[in-house]
Amino acid sequence: MEIALEIVVRCTEIDVNGHVNNAKFVEYLEWGREEWYDRLGLHYDRLHQMGAVTVVVNMNINLRKPCYQGDQLRIVTWPVKRGRTSFVLGQRIEREGVLVADGLITLVTIDPATSKSRPVPDELARWFPEEKAG
Amino acid sequence: MEIALEIVVRCTEIDVNGHVNNAKFVEYLEWGREEWYDRLGLHYDRLHQMGAVTVVVNMNINLRKPCYQGDQLRIVTWPVKRGRTSFVLGQRIEREGVLVADGLITLVTIDPATSKSRPVPDELARWFPEEKAG
Amino acid sequence: MEIALEIVVRCTEIDVNGHVNNAKFVEYLEWGREEWYDRLGLHYDRLHQMGAVTVVVNMNINLRKPCYQGDQLRIVTWPVKRGRTSFVLGQRIEREGVLVADGLITLVTIDPATSKSRPVPDELARWFPEEKAG
Amino acid sequence: MEIALEIVVRCTEIDVNGHVNNAKFVEYLEWGREEWYDRLGLHYDRLHQMGAVTVVVNMNINLRKPCYQGDQLRIVTWPVKRGRTSFVLGQRIEREGVLVADGLITLVTIDPATSKSRPVPDELARWFPEEKAG
Repeated sequence: MEIALEIVVRCTEIDVNGHVNNAKFVEYLEWGREEWYDRLGLHYDRLHQMGAVTVVVNMNINLRKPCYQGDQLRIVTWPVKRGRTSFVLGQRIEREGVLVADGLITLVTIDPATSKSRPVPDELARWFPEEKAG
Repeated sequence: MEIALEIVVRCTEIDVNGHVNNAKFVEYLEWGREEWYDRLGLHYDRLHQMGAVTVVVNMNINLRKPCYQGDQLRIVTWPVKRGRTSFVLGQRIEREGVLVADGLITLVTIDPATSKSRPVPDELARWFPEEKAG
Repeated sequence: MEIALEIVVRCTEIDVNGHVNNAKFVEYLEWGREEWYDRLGLHYDRLHQMGAVTVVVNMNINLRKPCYQGDQLRIVTWPVKRGRTSFVLGQRIEREGVLVADGLITLVTIDPATSKSRPVPDELARWFPEEKAG
Repeated sequence: MEIALEIVVRCTEIDVNGHVNNAKFVEYLEWGREEWYDRLGLHYDRLHQMGAVTVVVNMNINLRKPCYQGDQLRIVTWPVKRGRTSFVLGQRIEREGVLVADGLITLVTIDPATSKSRPVPDELARWFPEEKAG
């Protein structure tokens, strides 16, 4: 279940070298994850109603090619695996079919009432290929 | 050889949940690395004169605690290991002695004239504990 | 000669109140001006070849309505007036035909070789309705 | 009643020209206003308890000198005038005593319960030099 978001690199997103800054790639990935939740009907508000907030606990990101102002990027997000309370999303960024960045993002599900971890809600869990301990 | 930079979380650095955004942590770490280079006398311009630019190729970052507006954070950076052309910096962010984030950042040394990797300059390499294949 | 750019508000562009932050509106306007230059064939590199860089010296911006994640915004840019070395662009941001922000941006043309102001290049000047002292 | 905040320009705050980006100046000014509220004991939460939120409706900002990575900037904020529901703050940014940017920021006081404008709370109003219609 891959979800893609297409964006254009804007002038304020490049650094002194003329490249997209590392931190901006992290924002792009966040935009891509938001698109993934949205297309699954799992908006922030919807998850919150279920008593769940998802929080990033690890980002492992490879930056493979520099990107430039005006580049058309495709941010792809997919479910990799999940445990009881946590899950991993895979993400990659492509430019004209060429991989420019990729990574794994580990998130944990928190109950906003207690600020403690809680099981991944079924509506989210069902998108993952298999259950693993976590 | 640990180098620390102290910062204060600003109002525009927090997201809709009132927490420092993930991408902003990546900026903080970049500020910390810049401080590390500066204290070693290895500014961007100095490295460039040596025919070297350092580029991040992997970021593996753990986000352990939420941070809030006004938090005083200490960003600590140290050399972990190096290969022939690449090296790894360790980084952690502390708030009043408590770890809020940490990670390993892998960088490769590029010759700006050829855009190809090149050996880590000696003035930078000598700060690393030991040589490993890379 | 109005030029429009359409964008979508992203999750990392909203602040603790759930609104697009003031500084982000300033970025949106910069994206809109970049689109204006591009459509006129006056990219940064092209102007630079003519010995000209344009620098913002005043921004007078009205923020009229809050904007939210997912909003589709239309950033419209047009030439207002010019003097010998400076010029004014008008900009507005609309959401579904409703004005959410507008402003006037005053820029001066600099010769990058001397860092001093210089006449607006003809290729840029000709897009403005009339000449005024400046 | 001038309040100053001192900051250092960070590497991720400069653009492709090596200058602090225009939008980042707007963030610096917001940091300065936050400092002004804080020193007066008028934090966001405190104002909110009084049934008031302050919203920027106009920014009129002069950008006078480029700023660079590592610059030590002093952001100064002071009350200029107020009306019944709105007020104006003056702000300037200095580098080693030299003015690099300044501006006037107009804010309106909103009742978060109704989203309509309301009188400036007395605890805030008393810092302004005189009352004017607004």
